[in-house]
Amino acid sequence: MPDLDRNGVTPEVIAQMASTPDPRLREIMAAAVRHLHDFAREVDLKPDEWLAGIAFLTAVGQACTSYRQEFILLSDVLGLSRLVNVMHDAEGREAAGTETSLLGPFFREKAPEFAAGESIATRDKGGEEIILFGTVTDAAGTPIPEAGIDIWQVDATGLYDLQSGDAAVMDMRGRFRADAEGRFHMRTVRPIGYSVPMDGPVGQFVQRQGRHGLRPGHIHVLVQAPGYRELVTALYMADDPSIDSDTVFGVARSLVVRPERGLPGAPRPDLPAIRYDFRLSRLDAEAGGGRVGADPSQMMPAGR
Amino acid sequence: MPDLDRNGVTPEVIAQMASTPDPRLREIMAAAVRHLHDFAREVDLKPDEWLAGIAFLTAVGQACTSYRQEFILLSDVLGLSRLVNVMHDAEGREAAGTETSLLGPFFREKAPEFAAGESIATRDKGGEEIILFGTVTDAAGTPIPEAGIDIWQVDATGLYDLQSGDAAVMDMRGRFRADAEGRFHMRTVRPIGYSVPMDGPVGQFVQRQGRHGLRPGHIHVLVQAPGYRELVTALYMADDPSIDSDTVFGVARSLVVRPERGLPGAPRPDLPAIRYDFRLSRLDAEAGGGRVGADPSQMMPAGR
Repeated sequence: MPDLDRNGVTPEVIAQMASTPDPRLREIMAAAVRHLHDFAREVDLKPDEWLAGIAFLTAVGQACTSYRQEFILLSDVLGLSRLVNVMHDAEGREAAGTETSLLGPFFREKAPEFAAGESIATRDKGGEEIILFGTVTDAAGTPIPEAGIDIWQVDATGLYDLQSGDAAVMDMRGRFRADAEGRFHMRTVRPIGYSVPMDGPVGQFVQRQGRHGLRPGHIHVLVQAPGYRELVTALYMADDPSIDSDTVFGVARSLVVRPERGLPGAPRPDLPAIRYDFRLSRLDAEAGGGRVGADPSQMMPAGR
Repeated sequence: MPDLDRNGVTPEVIAQMASTPDPRLREIMAAAVRHLHDFAREVDLKPDEWLAGIAFLTAVGQACTSYRQEFILLSDVLGLSRLVNVMHDAEGREAAGTETSLLGPFFREKAPEFAAGESIATRDKGGEEIILFGTVTDAAGTPIPEAGIDIWQVDATGLYDLQSGDAAVMDMRGRFRADAEGRFHMRTVRPIGYSVPMDGPVGQFVQRQGRHGLRPGHIHVLVQAPGYRELVTALYMADDPSIDSDTVFGVARSLVVRPERGLPGAPRPDLPAIRYDFRLSRLDAEAGGGRVGADPSQMMPAGR
């Protein structure tokens, strides 16, 4: 029996985990233990601090429901989601393909379907009506017919439908289909900047860090077409005051847009419009899914 | 606005967290983010794997109740608890003081009080009766009068009372008081080795790692006396088959014991006895608490 000192405990744990049959799980957990222990040693983590961490993670887990994913939110505000997203993007995206962004904790499967030109704002809560239009193409710019396009965003009060706490409500989200020439066209309201949910443990944590907790206004977009890599991205509003200090680090320069009147080809000249052409990358058979986020209801343990 | 690559995201997150007023929280979180990101980069963490991790942590949090602390269990099987314990021990324990061990997730506040010589086995579930006796002293061996001594352990079926799921049940745990000469004496049953709870997400994880999940039989001990550092420790049974492969890495050589008949001074010569003298270290006014574990009911968010 080895007597474990502060350095000896780490190889002992990794040795006990060496029996893991799945080589990838073994690799991931050995690295996780090494970095976790290095962290604790570096900051000389005290029992009381460790206990505060346990209490925090417990509260984060307890805050999760079928319409709230507090662990994804935690990953987001720690920049881990963005890092995973950036690595995924660097790996399989064609250089000319549209950059990806976080899926986040507010995506929902099976959003209502809309016809071209309809608005996802099904409940009138105000906000300035805008148009989003463009073409779905491959990375070379060749149109892809009939891609599925999900968009979702906050309403004019800065809340997602999921934040109403009523799982039956679906609003400010919808599924569209591009036409045979790849063209799409939808209406929504100008997305305002908003705070990540501040009424839970992650919000309290962000406040204890003196961070503003704001995200610049954005429209989430998910584009799917057979034979192409699913595109998870978002379009960010250029004039939002927190465009340079997104609390979940989601903004990329190529995804910043500005609704404008008088754009050539805009289907509704009376409304401010965003034109964005989504360029899909080829499907890499090796790659798994690229969603850095989830429908909260898919993330709950069975029976909850 | 910086476009974040796989290395650029980390300093950006740490910069946003620089507003944290509490310097210790700022230090801990900067290190946590750095190590978390280093981990993700090192294993090239994929979105699907990240999502599996989120689902796992969610399940761990959801498994916590006022009588079950699944996050402490996770910390235990990853060796983090032992590391925090070892660092705390190295810092404030006097060289001759008794080594500490994990408090674990099965401690309960306000265990029933017993008089010297009584048994904590209040419900007859079998098992071989044994004696634990000795003296509480300071590190130099001078007796400390009237120290409080909590002990707790599994019953003869290998379960803690908390695992019955009935919060009203307290069994196999109790509080004793040493006498004016520091002597104590209590009865229990020989603790058998047992598996950590395998019916939750951490147990499933341990199984996926091909680990046995066993802990060698042990008696948890918590000793308190005014002016001395609280001693959290445990006594491990020498003849247990998993004494060298504890799944939570709690065993230290100086804490291994063997119940024997005929020990000098044993208060009940008819029973196997363990003699252990607990040597308390002086209280370090700087040090916070040293409990690497908790009563699960103290770890739940308010209102749960």
